Amino acid sequence: MRRYNGMRPISRSRPGLEYPTMMKDLPLSKVYQLLEPGPVVLLTTAHKGRANVMTMSWHMMVEFVPPLVACVVSNANHSFTALRAAKECVIAIPALELAPKVVKIGNCSGRDVDKFERFGLTQSPAECVAPPLVADCFANLECRVADTSLVNQFNLFILEVVKAWTDPKQRHPKTIHHQGFGRFAVDGEIIKLKSIKP
Amino acid sequence: MRRYNGMRPISRSRPGLEYPTMMKDLPLSKVYQLLEPGPVVLLTTAHKGRANVMTMSWHMMVEFVPPLVACVVSNANHSFTALRAAKECVIAIPALELAPKVVKIGNCSGRDVDKFERFGLTQSPAECVAPPLVADCFANLECRVADTSLVNQFNLFILEVVKAWTDPKQRHPKTIHHQGFGRFAVDGEIIKLKSIKP
Repeated sequence: MRRYNGMRPISRSRPGLEYPTMMKDLPLSKVYQLLEPGPVVLLTTAHKGRANVMTMSWHMMVEFVPPLVACVVSNANHSFTALRAAKECVIAIPALELAPKVVKIGNCSGRDVDKFERFGLTQSPAECVAPPLVADCFANLECRVADTSLVNQFNLFILEVVKAWTDPKQRHPKTIHHQGFGRFAVDGEIIKLKSIKP
Repeated sequence: MRRYNGMRPISRSRPGLEYPTMMKDLPLSKVYQLLEPGPVVLLTTAHKGRANVMTMSWHMMVEFVPPLVACVVSNANHSFTALRAAKECVIAIPALELAPKVVKIGNCSGRDVDKFERFGLTQSPAECVAPPLVADCFANLECRVADTSLVNQFNLFILEVVKAWTDPKQRHPKTIHHQGFGRFAVDGEIIKLKSIKP
């Protein structure tokens, strides 16, 4: 019998590519440290047996533990219907190297194309939700929709992160921050200042 | 009669310091370009004749025009009461040089101290709201609370930006992105990728 060691195998849908094979549990109490800096993320959904992925920058933390995240998914996006119906998603955080794919994912619609296939993204099964993890990303957050009261008015969903993964092989990933029309600030210098606040 | 030229004088409460003397109108359609990247911001409020300022990282864009912004202000914060009561605030965006002050502002409470005075911040009157601009910051967004339906449950406010200012003397400001406990990623390289999306 194998003991669970907090690692999760990634199914290699494209064995020719060099993707990490294992992901590591991230304590839910640390999730805010990934999203609070405001990186561009990918959002995966699954609806009627089909997975989709979109690019998203309009998100914020709402609570530390259990981690709650607010996000805006426009009702013009194909993902909106899936998220509202299935009430599950995965937030995957790409590092700089994926930036060209991240922009292309944001510039086409899942209505017209299988974006995982077109852009060579590796899906991996999530543990708690139906939408897939994106194994190419350095972090994946499995989410359930926790509140929909502002969906009709503002396209605003409140998500609860129920499981979080990081890829230990992607060390010190640099994230990207969208300034509009494909212009991004990349993480630069890290500074540390004395603070008692999380 | 003076013609309005889109510039606004800043009242120098501390004439010994070298602050910019003019701020420039920013079209509301460009506000998202400042907040979408996820910088740490300052939030000013005014309540019962007293201004206060807090540090905030939990915010996101909700709509382009008129610009709507969601933010979470904990009900443990002194600013919560002011924001809920007066329904107005200013989001001021500091550049890297203010990082030490930004952390200190986040580590004390307006209950105990006048933070503008303690940290030598320069207030400037806003045009549409009672809370002051922070003249030291490179951008200031005057906001009115537009929706409070998630305030009780999640401390989540929806704000409408009604007026935006930038300081033309602070060119190419680097913003800071909080990763927890006083650790920040500073804006580094800027990359530009072809995109049709705002």
